[in-house]
Amino acid sequence: MMNEKMYALGSKRSTIREIFEYAKMRAVEIGKENVFDFSIGNPSVPAPACVHATIKKLLSEIPSVELHGYTSAQGGKDVRDTIAANFTRRFGVALSGDDLYMTCGAAASLTITFKALANAGDEFIVFAPFFPEYRVFIENAGAKLVAVASDERTLLPDFEALERAITPKTKGVLINSPNNPSGVVYGEQTLQTLAEILKAKSEEYGETIYLISDEPYRELVYDAKTIVPCPMKFYADTIVCYSYSKSLSLPGERVGYIAVSPKAREAKKLYAAVCGAGRSLGFVCAPALFQRVAASCDGQTADLSVYRKNRDLLYNALTAYGFTCIHPDGAFYLFMKSAEADAATFCERAKKYELLLVNGEDFGAKGFVRIAYCVETERIERALPLFKKLAEEYSLIK
Amino acid sequence: MMNEKMYALGSKRSTIREIFEYAKMRAVEIGKENVFDFSIGNPSVPAPACVHATIKKLLSEIPSVELHGYTSAQGGKDVRDTIAANFTRRFGVALSGDDLYMTCGAAASLTITFKALANAGDEFIVFAPFFPEYRVFIENAGAKLVAVASDERTLLPDFEALERAITPKTKGVLINSPNNPSGVVYGEQTLQTLAEILKAKSEEYGETIYLISDEPYRELVYDAKTIVPCPMKFYADTIVCYSYSKSLSLPGERVGYIAVSPKAREAKKLYAAVCGAGRSLGFVCAPALFQRVAASCDGQTADLSVYRKNRDLLYNALTAYGFTCIHPDGAFYLFMKSAEADAATFCERAKKYELLLVNGEDFGAKGFVRIAYCVETERIERALPLFKKLAEEYSLIK
Repeated sequence: MMNEKMYALGSKRSTIREIFEYAKMRAVEIGKENVFDFSIGNPSVPAPACVHATIKKLLSEIPSVELHGYTSAQGGKDVRDTIAANFTRRFGVALSGDDLYMTCGAAASLTITFKALANAGDEFIVFAPFFPEYRVFIENAGAKLVAVASDERTLLPDFEALERAITPKTKGVLINSPNNPSGVVYGEQTLQTLAEILKAKSEEYGETIYLISDEPYRELVYDAKTIVPCPMKFYADTIVCYSYSKSLSLPGERVGYIAVSPKAREAKKLYAAVCGAGRSLGFVCAPALFQRVAASCDGQTADLSVYRKNRDLLYNALTAYGFTCIHPDGAFYLFMKSAEADAATFCERAKKYELLLVNGEDFGAKGFVRIAYCVETERIERALPLFKKLAEEYSLIK
Repeated sequence: MMNEKMYALGSKRSTIREIFEYAKMRAVEIGKENVFDFSIGNPSVPAPACVHATIKKLLSEIPSVELHGYTSAQGGKDVRDTIAANFTRRFGVALSGDDLYMTCGAAASLTITFKALANAGDEFIVFAPFFPEYRVFIENAGAKLVAVASDERTLLPDFEALERAITPKTKGVLINSPNNPSGVVYGEQTLQTLAEILKAKSEEYGETIYLISDEPYRELVYDAKTIVPCPMKFYADTIVCYSYSKSLSLPGERVGYIAVSPKAREAKKLYAAVCGAGRSLGFVCAPALFQRVAASCDGQTADLSVYRKNRDLLYNALTAYGFTCIHPDGAFYLFMKSAEADAATFCERAKKYELLLVNGEDFGAKGFVRIAYCVETERIERALPLFKKLAEEYSLIK
């Protein structure tokens, strides 16, 4: 009757969304203050002041018909020119407004990119652990996700495993740094090595292998020494997928962009394919008001000090309790080793304390859980004694 | 290399978008006041006052994190409950918030619906003339558009042609009333006959044939006696696709909904398939701020008197000049017979006068042009002498 695969996708929500909905239900039952929902990457910090200031300015200065009207499918020209100029200045990569395509957020950036690139049977390589919706987005384009392991200790790419995984069917490699769920940031050396492998393999097979860089957490780094390098600097055939959801704390407003490297092979044609894919999927244009907000606030961020504080608080306490955690340099997730082999059972035990964690298996990594620490600091403080009890249950505390 | 079909879709824009972009370029060359762009359905009337009032209220009353955060994938519960209650009251069809799925506008409503329903090789029947992007959206779901002619005089469905066109592959029939491009409104009798045919054919083939009703122009009707009936009243297996783009003059903001009739066969499963399709296509949620605006302003409209004035002015003048036009009861388009067999040549001749019309062939109707009259009245007044000259070129004026 209907499409059974869509029914399956709709009836079995992503685990993250499942827990998010459970938390909302549980909050009604026992009070919001008693539920410790670490499931979803919903920023806990208000949008920076420029967001509301810009909205108010736009409402008073621009006539309604112009402000809320259709923009060009790829986004308003002024908006794209502004963001591209910032991109050039900030990342040292020449980009023009004609290389930018405004989207309805990161998910749209990705579904459009995969649809623009993929032919039936193509493969995209993703490093585990990875955001589980990547599989849904890649399969929507009729392509296949191929997971490649990361180095177990650093969670940086395992390049030997990558070389073994690339085949003539490989259309692209997807990276995500700062990483969800691990918080790991790829440095220049990592991108350099990755670029060398992709160049060599593209030549070997006579087909371009694209590098797709999913960067919603680009501005969320916590140490002055941590710099998130732009992959376009290292590899010509790069497409950057960006979203303002996390940097400006606007996840519900759905605004982001795709930047097609002007140095990519047949870059203009590639950009046109992005436009075609957006059209095909039903994205007429990115939300008009928030396109302008994004341009006006591009490069600014919400107050990240809260996330840093949360990270330090959580990382230090959990490691002190005997848990093993990957130290996150960016994003707002802590990837922690499960205290027993089966992370699902561990998550169930945590749930008894109203600690809602996400099983790392959903990210393609067995024996881990993800803790989204984009919550009020006070909530983390109140959660710590519960984490301590959980550690005691496993006799982790020495 | 990349996906050639997406490249084709992106490099050859829709004719409407092509003319829209041409008009913008031409405005730079000869001044905006000298270009008569009748190409795009971009509302020319400001959003009703409640839109900006609601935005300002929301900015001051709801904390940023809550206001701009992710909503549930199907939309905020309050938003859905409010709109569903209005729907029940306005159209006399019982609907709950759990039957509603908020979308990023009409295009999203349609791509999600087709994706939720279609299996490879399925067919959707559309009555010509029809909005050309329907083909793009249907093909995105791996299905095929089957065009069925309308009655030539009334542009209402030709039911004999419909019966001949339905096959076991028919997954659904798509209607669009008030119609783009003809402005025709389907009355109760039309829906009743349509429902009887679909019921009989569904029984004959033992497979549900869905009725998909694309209703972005639902509120845009100009005569007190014209009522747009709700197709759910006539046929159980109905999905309504709605957008606030035209009613609230918010086309750039991308907000609308899908309403799944609770009387549809396996309605809950169908709703889940809609959720799955939205997820698969990368629509995480409809824009959060404008979800609340939609709920708050649902049922209100921008000032439609301008459109009515424009319609009367244009229809009366053009018929007086000797052109043959379909009288539009709704939407803001006038469908006019081309003054020569080849409408493309006619459009080119009109272009000499800076009159930018859309060839009806793109809507599956030969020998017509579409004139979008959602422009300032003053622009229509200034365009009339040019239309008159065009009529004189064809010796239409008696």
